[in-house]
Amino acid sequence: MLFRRFYSAMSKPQVLRLGPVRYAHRKWDELAKLAEVVQTTAENRSEFIKELDAGKWDKVVAITRTFDSVEVTGRFDEELASHFPPSVKAVCHNGAGYDQVDIPPFLKRKIQVSNVPSIVDDATADTHIYLLLSALRNFQHSHHLLLQGKWETETAKCGGAPIGNDPKGKTLGIFGMGGIGRAVRDRAAPFGFGKVIYHNRNRLSPDLEKDAEYVSFDELLAQSDIVSINIPLNPATRHSINKESISKMKDGVVIINTARGAVIDESALIEALKSGKVKSCGLDVFEHEPHVPKELLELPNVVSLPHMGTHTHETMQSMEEWVVTNVEDLLSKGKVTSIVPELKNESY
Amino acid sequence: MLFRRFYSAMSKPQVLRLGPVRYAHRKWDELAKLAEVVQTTAENRSEFIKELDAGKWDKVVAITRTFDSVEVTGRFDEELASHFPPSVKAVCHNGAGYDQVDIPPFLKRKIQVSNVPSIVDDATADTHIYLLLSALRNFQHSHHLLLQGKWETETAKCGGAPIGNDPKGKTLGIFGMGGIGRAVRDRAAPFGFGKVIYHNRNRLSPDLEKDAEYVSFDELLAQSDIVSINIPLNPATRHSINKESISKMKDGVVIINTARGAVIDESALIEALKSGKVKSCGLDVFEHEPHVPKELLELPNVVSLPHMGTHTHETMQSMEEWVVTNVEDLLSKGKVTSIVPELKNESY
Repeated sequence: MLFRRFYSAMSKPQVLRLGPVRYAHRKWDELAKLAEVVQTTAENRSEFIKELDAGKWDKVVAITRTFDSVEVTGRFDEELASHFPPSVKAVCHNGAGYDQVDIPPFLKRKIQVSNVPSIVDDATADTHIYLLLSALRNFQHSHHLLLQGKWETETAKCGGAPIGNDPKGKTLGIFGMGGIGRAVRDRAAPFGFGKVIYHNRNRLSPDLEKDAEYVSFDELLAQSDIVSINIPLNPATRHSINKESISKMKDGVVIINTARGAVIDESALIEALKSGKVKSCGLDVFEHEPHVPKELLELPNVVSLPHMGTHTHETMQSMEEWVVTNVEDLLSKGKVTSIVPELKNESY
Repeated sequence: MLFRRFYSAMSKPQVLRLGPVRYAHRKWDELAKLAEVVQTTAENRSEFIKELDAGKWDKVVAITRTFDSVEVTGRFDEELASHFPPSVKAVCHNGAGYDQVDIPPFLKRKIQVSNVPSIVDDATADTHIYLLLSALRNFQHSHHLLLQGKWETETAKCGGAPIGNDPKGKTLGIFGMGGIGRAVRDRAAPFGFGKVIYHNRNRLSPDLEKDAEYVSFDELLAQSDIVSINIPLNPATRHSINKESISKMKDGVVIINTARGAVIDESALIEALKSGKVKSCGLDVFEHEPHVPKELLELPNVVSLPHMGTHTHETMQSMEEWVVTNVEDLLSKGKVTSIVPELKNESY
């Protein structure tokens, strides 16, 4: 309330929007009644810092950002935060994963950080199931054989498509059982997996856990026929899947990752795919996006996508709208709605 | 019983196996205790007919065949049946769809025909869901963009991957609600479709129907955002999806076919894909397999596979084993177990 009165007594607060609006035009138009929406013309980080230092954004209360805007501003880290004017009260990120934003410097400056949870779960889990089916059945590679004319010219069945496996009876190991992990678990249920196990920082309550069995990380590695990765990227999870953890997996394991590329040590994965230790994998995310090693892309047992987990009209519109909702709530109540977990207990 | 005594009093009956054994070696070895398993060296239909006419297969009681063996023998039609010796009591086909076998000539000769139902349902439905997700989300095309390096070189989001759609809220129209159609329906349930409708020759009983709503063929065409095809191919279903039926569909409809290619008029589909009437499609089967028109393969809104519906180790082994079970049951009881529906009420 205080916050609202504070702003209504002055000129409209400014909201700095980093990254384009693709779908939520109406919602942004509504916001424009409450705030002046401004945009940077900076083309890179040093230009953006110059604008900040020149006082261009000294009336900005909230900064909204997209995953791709990192290409202009770079990461939201200690250095960048140190150039922010004191007017900035919130950074509203458009995405579930906010690994591009270092939380401590913003906590220090009492700047709230919000992300977009839940809304991304379904589309990301849909992508995950697609990759899982493709990796298990060698669909991607077989499609290439078809394009190359092998079906018509070779006598081998299905043009020489390598034989796949059924999900039926297999053990699905879910690493990271948040909203996306649970959405993967629910979608996988009718496919007849023999068993679903999961590992999470904390065991879930029984109503969220359903039929999935909680196991240690090492048990997950040892028992899973398919390792399904749904953990956030942070310093603790970086390279969780590395040479050592892969060596603890079953021979011929299948790995699916729609979380963040850097939770896997990509070079260790490439070695394991080449040796056959990892039979196949499905990847929507990569360690150094948008760069993907040619060697990884061209392995026949890799199914790859250009980070499309939430790339649908409906989901992207909802995500963009949710970012604006966070800004609206900041303006009206002084608090963003979906503050990131690390900041949940802070007072603003 | 009579049948069994008849054979045990004589030399072992012969079983002519058309097409290779890939997985069910043990089961075939067991059969070899009851029957002499013989194979043709014919490389084409006329050579095979010559063998038949020369009396080479005059002791054959059962003929087993695979989908691919059609390339040697051609279709099992009136002409081929007319060369069969009177010893042949059954044709045991390895597959759910038996459109390569004309039933009337075999009925006339009192030759039983069996197929492999149920066992194929899960793997085929898995393939169907893969194609559905891919077509709805443009995953296949986007993978190609990634391979072409577009993600790294283009500024467009996801390398220019066309934006997809969520299943959520959409109407899924299942055309053909047999075992495979129902397995598709069950797998689709957690993806949040708004409504599932179906059309079948006969309405299902409530326990099989579950939440799906029975509609006429024209209502299915008019209401579906996704048309999921799971009907058998026969003279009545050939080209069910043609210029006229496509014109009754929604603009931007998505079509998935894992049944048989010829249930769709392929040239009408190509036109509709080019005009955008059909937004995208996922095809495991084609009208003139293994030939697929280059134009169809290369359309960016087509996801294609070289007929891999049941191409898994587990499912193919179970199918091969089931063919042998039919032969065993013929030898021991005088009747194959999974006789095709058209012959269910015949006495043998």
